[in-house]
Amino acid sequence: MVRENEIRENEVAVEPPAATDAGLVFIGRISTPWTSRMETPRQGRHDGPLCRIEIFEPWGPALKGVEAFERLEILYWLDRSRRDLVLQSPASSGKVHGTFSLRSPVRPNPIGTSIVKLEAVEGAVLLVRGLDCLDGTPLLDLKPDRTLFKPIAPPQPGDFHTDDEGTAHYCQKRET
Amino acid sequence: MVRENEIRENEVAVEPPAATDAGLVFIGRISTPWTSRMETPRQGRHDGPLCRIEIFEPWGPALKGVEAFERLEILYWLDRSRRDLVLQSPASSGKVHGTFSLRSPVRPNPIGTSIVKLEAVEGAVLLVRGLDCLDGTPLLDLKPDRTLFKPIAPPQPGDFHTDDEGTAHYCQKRET
Repeated sequence: MVRENEIRENEVAVEPPAATDAGLVFIGRISTPWTSRMETPRQGRHDGPLCRIEIFEPWGPALKGVEAFERLEILYWLDRSRRDLVLQSPASSGKVHGTFSLRSPVRPNPIGTSIVKLEAVEGAVLLVRGLDCLDGTPLLDLKPDRTLFKPIAPPQPGDFHTDDEGTAHYCQKRET
Repeated sequence: MVRENEIRENEVAVEPPAATDAGLVFIGRISTPWTSRMETPRQGRHDGPLCRIEIFEPWGPALKGVEAFERLEILYWLDRSRRDLVLQSPASSGKVHGTFSLRSPVRPNPIGTSIVKLEAVEGAVLLVRGLDCLDGTPLLDLKPDRTLFKPIAPPQPGDFHTDDEGTAHYCQKRET
């Protein structure tokens, strides 16, 4: 079953800090066939139904060149998810899993990510397959699938950094 | 060259809407070897240096079970990026690309995503390889790599939804 706002057996909620460390702007809206949480897929599929991504102004010009990529990474805001569970019971069995070992929409920052197949670009609208979210979900970002993208900017020293300093300072516990 | 805050030839900035549609909470901090934007890799590599991800309270218990996954998807906040460019010139050549056709850190919602190799979990600290961000970058989320994760919750109707209704309402232009 999909959760509305209930907590299930053995799940653990915390008192979360205020979500004011950074702010998001919704840059578009996603249209899908799914208008109820009882219907949405657990995971999108590339042979799934066409979904529509509309980009709001002033961001339309940022689509230039996106048609060259067969697959895109999409980030969206799961605006109907609670954010305070650290242990969850997805199968409602009483067995709990840590939130970070799940891809559940319930998380401290409810950002969904999908890799979609790009079918068409029509002005400020993309038609794609592979989404798993509710109709009307706010869009946060889109970018080429990492496996298809080669940086245009010249490489930097870190791109060649393969050695392992072992006890390097950045791996040590900080004094705070 | 890495940008500080300058705009390059032919790049286009917009007046962005206020970023107040949703709020984020920083759930941890990432430590890497790179303390200057002149050093950070363009893309992380799985044979790159060990990096450290520290999870803040009250989120520690949410790590339960994460050690079972060889690879994790990490989301982080690129807190030093400008957010207003729609056309960018990564090679400083005057040739411009739309922001959404790039994986540049400069974007309306500067969220970085990486797939990392998980090397160790030590309490509320993860040691990983494959990051590409500056030392001190705020952490937003972590979850199993999508290719390794099988949903625990039972499937829903959308998981079997492969038909294409063609002119379905959700693909039509909305009247707004």
